[in-house]
Amino acid sequence: MDTFECAFCQKTFPVDPFHTFCPECQEPLLCKVPKSDKKFHHDKDSPLEIMLDFLPLDQVDQDLSLGEGNTPLLRLKNVEKNFQLPSLYAKNETVNPSLSFKDRGTALATQKAISLGIERIGTVSTGNMAISTAAYGAKAGLETYVLIKEGAYREILNSTGIYDPVMIIVKGDYGELFRRSLSLGKEKNIYFANSVDPFRIEGYKVTSLEIFFQLNQKVPDFIFSPVSSGGHLIGLIKAFQELQQHGFITKLPHFVGVQAEGCSPIAKAFQQNKPSVERMAKAETIANAISNPDPPGGNLLLRMIRQAGGIIMSTPDEKILEAQRILSELEGIFVQPASATTLAGLLKLTDQGKIDQESRIILILTGHGMKGLDKIALKDTHIMHSDIADLESILESVPSD
Amino acid sequence: MDTFECAFCQKTFPVDPFHTFCPECQEPLLCKVPKSDKKFHHDKDSPLEIMLDFLPLDQVDQDLSLGEGNTPLLRLKNVEKNFQLPSLYAKNETVNPSLSFKDRGTALATQKAISLGIERIGTVSTGNMAISTAAYGAKAGLETYVLIKEGAYREILNSTGIYDPVMIIVKGDYGELFRRSLSLGKEKNIYFANSVDPFRIEGYKVTSLEIFFQLNQKVPDFIFSPVSSGGHLIGLIKAFQELQQHGFITKLPHFVGVQAEGCSPIAKAFQQNKPSVERMAKAETIANAISNPDPPGGNLLLRMIRQAGGIIMSTPDEKILEAQRILSELEGIFVQPASATTLAGLLKLTDQGKIDQESRIILILTGHGMKGLDKIALKDTHIMHSDIADLESILESVPSD
Repeated sequence: MDTFECAFCQKTFPVDPFHTFCPECQEPLLCKVPKSDKKFHHDKDSPLEIMLDFLPLDQVDQDLSLGEGNTPLLRLKNVEKNFQLPSLYAKNETVNPSLSFKDRGTALATQKAISLGIERIGTVSTGNMAISTAAYGAKAGLETYVLIKEGAYREILNSTGIYDPVMIIVKGDYGELFRRSLSLGKEKNIYFANSVDPFRIEGYKVTSLEIFFQLNQKVPDFIFSPVSSGGHLIGLIKAFQELQQHGFITKLPHFVGVQAEGCSPIAKAFQQNKPSVERMAKAETIANAISNPDPPGGNLLLRMIRQAGGIIMSTPDEKILEAQRILSELEGIFVQPASATTLAGLLKLTDQGKIDQESRIILILTGHGMKGLDKIALKDTHIMHSDIADLESILESVPSD
Repeated sequence: MDTFECAFCQKTFPVDPFHTFCPECQEPLLCKVPKSDKKFHHDKDSPLEIMLDFLPLDQVDQDLSLGEGNTPLLRLKNVEKNFQLPSLYAKNETVNPSLSFKDRGTALATQKAISLGIERIGTVSTGNMAISTAAYGAKAGLETYVLIKEGAYREILNSTGIYDPVMIIVKGDYGELFRRSLSLGKEKNIYFANSVDPFRIEGYKVTSLEIFFQLNQKVPDFIFSPVSSGGHLIGLIKAFQELQQHGFITKLPHFVGVQAEGCSPIAKAFQQNKPSVERMAKAETIANAISNPDPPGGNLLLRMIRQAGGIIMSTPDEKILEAQRILSELEGIFVQPASATTLAGLLKLTDQGKIDQESRIILILTGHGMKGLDKIALKDTHIMHSDIADLESILESVPSD
């Protein structure tokens, strides 16, 4: 039977979407899926069905799916060539249905909610997770509650509101709101699938499993992922650990979590070799999708990344924006600034001589650039104006690159 | 050997991206792919490779791909139930890499350009095609020219400009710009892959072929698609015609092209049983992705839809916006207004008793709602404001649906 487990005190608890933190350690619980003799069901079409033995689901209800996952793994040869990098791939999570990796977690949380007879779902978010939860809640016919921190961009409100959830814009500390949502959820029977929800994390595992098969069952040497609350990278690591436990692989990738310098509490704790993460007074970064100054999965991620032999690092905003441009101009992939931290982190480690030239490297691109469009500065681009009669001379005036 | 053919005078021409209209009839040429004994290569991963025998390509260069295609076919059971509809599916083209169906066509045009040694590519667009061409041009390392009609939204400029193409904002008549781009392209060696480009149309065929296999080699009864220039639906029809010619199927789907009432020149010609399309003086619709008053593929589409036994209809803006809301609120899918014309059209035909209850119906959803966000009115949504202390009472005040 599936259980929840605390990675700190090792206690186990019954699976319960309303009790997702260890009552003693105050750390997020993780799912333990005991099915033995795990197989992959490649005769199935959907990622959740293919990976079912690794997930805390008895079956998959396709009527709840928006077609999440099965995202492309793209070779980035132009970036390789320009920066003398080894084999580099992007796992393009931006083409999930609501345009971010959050759909992986929301899909699993929604499956679980329906299978348990839950009627109300919620989340606390600054953006991507609000949109994703509103979309899946609509599809599943759940009453959906989205708590959004005051100050969110209009594009977040519009693209969440289109699904018609209950949307509450909340003033106050984000970490406090996170904790309050969980206690209110218990009282009001609203399952708050927040950033480090155990089922959400199980959904993120599927991304790693897809990468493993897209590389013909080879283990990449490095996986770079943006880090905010910690939940996403926890899921990515957990999947490879489970592949190892069940004998599919013998070694783990090196995981590199990248934060934006202006909001890098986990990277700070990692670099200073501290046992736990200290919250930052404020977050100041253009990468608003990863601007959580009080990450609820910080301590758990620190623990897992140290066990797995990875690192958590940070990169400044100007390098993030530079990396965003590199990905669009050289590879035709337009990502949110948060996703561009992965390439910025790789370029930094490359400069430091830490990347072996024989490596196979994966960047996890988490959210589409269309969600963050207001921040694109067009000043560098070639924009010209013309009428039809002058078009010929305008074309002749274009400098050859 | 592949050739170009005019559907009107039946003349054939050598394949040439710089001569894509019949010099006599002035109508768009179509590709003829003579490979006999066509097979599907299901052992391959990418849609272009799987469908290669049906496409005017000798091979597929994966380094030019952004992972286009292989999009979900989603059952819309909530809409079925609410509107007493037969089996209804959405082909979700909004999760293509640049978030619209245009990527299918651009992917094929780019493959062709590189295989022919072409170094400069271009397009004339009001939105989706500009973004798509800029993205694929960047990936392929082509010099990319995007001609955008004056008045395009800032979000179009930003999301095209991020790939750093040569972007020229042009004043003047859109139809004239379309024709001028083709003549200038010949002079300046820029391959303008515009809306009815023969290779672009070949790329759209892949969508139909995917649907055929996603339905386990069954033919849907109806396929609804938005119509602007005509190119997309021409490709969708052509694929099923070829499946029939090569003995894979015995009957065709009923194709329903839907235009916005404020810009419906092809629907008008169809309803009035005219042999050719008359341009409209102006386009007035919220569905700007399909607001071409002078559609270059109009006459060809009319001809094909009459042969295939389909119809071209129109629907007013208020029904389009209503359908957009239905898709997001009931099915968790957020589309551009243009895509919502498909559901609006289906509901209209259902009201008229023209849809058999045993039918299997496909809606082609062409572009993601994130590209058109400014037009979302939030007035209907449940938005509340709170601080953390008052959250409990705010939650209690939410009316149950």
